[in-house]
Amino acid sequence: MTEAHEPLRSAWDTTKEDPGKWAQKRRLADAMRLVIERLVSSDAPEDELRRAADALERYGDALEAHPRLRFVHGYAESANAGDVSAFFDRSPMIGLANPLAPPITIAKTGERTAEARAVFSSAYEGPPGHVHGGFVAAAFDEVLGFVQSLSGRPGMTGTLIVRYRRPTPLHTELRFTAAYVRSEGRRLYTEARVHAGDVLCAEAEGVFVSIARERFEALEAERAAREAERAR
Amino acid sequence: MTEAHEPLRSAWDTTKEDPGKWAQKRRLADAMRLVIERLVSSDAPEDELRRAADALERYGDALEAHPRLRFVHGYAESANAGDVSAFFDRSPMIGLANPLAPPITIAKTGERTAEARAVFSSAYEGPPGHVHGGFVAAAFDEVLGFVQSLSGRPGMTGTLIVRYRRPTPLHTELRFTAAYVRSEGRRLYTEARVHAGDVLCAEAEGVFVSIARERFEALEAERAAREAERAR
Repeated sequence: MTEAHEPLRSAWDTTKEDPGKWAQKRRLADAMRLVIERLVSSDAPEDELRRAADALERYGDALEAHPRLRFVHGYAESANAGDVSAFFDRSPMIGLANPLAPPITIAKTGERTAEARAVFSSAYEGPPGHVHGGFVAAAFDEVLGFVQSLSGRPGMTGTLIVRYRRPTPLHTELRFTAAYVRSEGRRLYTEARVHAGDVLCAEAEGVFVSIARERFEALEAERAAREAERAR
Repeated sequence: MTEAHEPLRSAWDTTKEDPGKWAQKRRLADAMRLVIERLVSSDAPEDELRRAADALERYGDALEAHPRLRFVHGYAESANAGDVSAFFDRSPMIGLANPLAPPITIAKTGERTAEARAVFSSAYEGPPGHVHGGFVAAAFDEVLGFVQSLSGRPGMTGTLIVRYRRPTPLHTELRFTAAYVRSEGRRLYTEARVHAGDVLCAEAEGVFVSIARERFEALEAERAAREAERAR
């Protein structure tokens, strides 16, 4: 059903510092993705689940001992960065080092266009054998966020509209095509589609609201204050 | 900022068979959520990440040896089940046994209304310190899917519209309120809002399309055929 595509090379697939550490973090995230995929659909016995939970709880405690990443590691989504080659390993949709992410790979294909690909595992199931509609929407938000940033004055999502045409299959390479269409004052209009092979699964429109760099900086400051409060 | 709320009791918080096994699976999923939260924001050293990746890869291989869950364990999202007390432990949004899920807790509050609560960890970050807009949309899809099922003739998402009012904070109890509003032929109209304390963060509308039970059964049959093909 799917055509063969060349793997997309992500614009930000770089490890700017300490590449060995990031390689292991991505490998660990990959391993967690595999465990999540197999765990959700597995009928593993109780004793083994208990031992695994014991081990993971110990690992969660061990992780607490390390310092937190400095925020210089970059934004967690492509929409806000204003730099399409920024470092997105932490993103819950595209981050190679975030086990929540399928991950989606996004690449610029023109001045105002991009293509993205993803394969969703069983762990993302909604209707039988198909991707949860919420994750289809989440993927569109990320892809539309990427193309709105090509406007050069990125913003945050104002309105997201998703029209579901056919159920979106699991375990199948999905191809998203997206474009930044036009602006109207601070509003940036975008659109996207997702296909599985030749089948159009869903379409989306996103209206983003361009915001000043100071507003992002204010969010960062608010974040730092919350972190400090949580650390107390 | 958040008011104190009683914890919501989920309508389907039941383990119909082998409660000990499901308790361990949920515990393992909780431990993975903790590891995901701490891993994404941690500056753990390379050697430790390597050892953790080694161990997780071994566990992924070990999980392969077990049988897969029979589908009788139920649907992965509340929208399709036609039974609000069905078993949703696998859901990527509400499933206590799915490490991808925050998880969201949903409870019916009236004939056509529901309330849901969730706290998103750092792993779900989009804009600095706030929930990725895609996951806000995903949560709405799940909550709207739940209330449309209160119509008694559940369907699948046709159109999802999300209007973002304010950035939605991480680490804060979010409160979703949702209602099934009316039907028009096979179309089921729903709406929802999400608040963090008194702040309205986003609003959503969902139009669902009621589909015959046979259509769900066809999806299940298609799923079984794919699974058989993948197992070959």
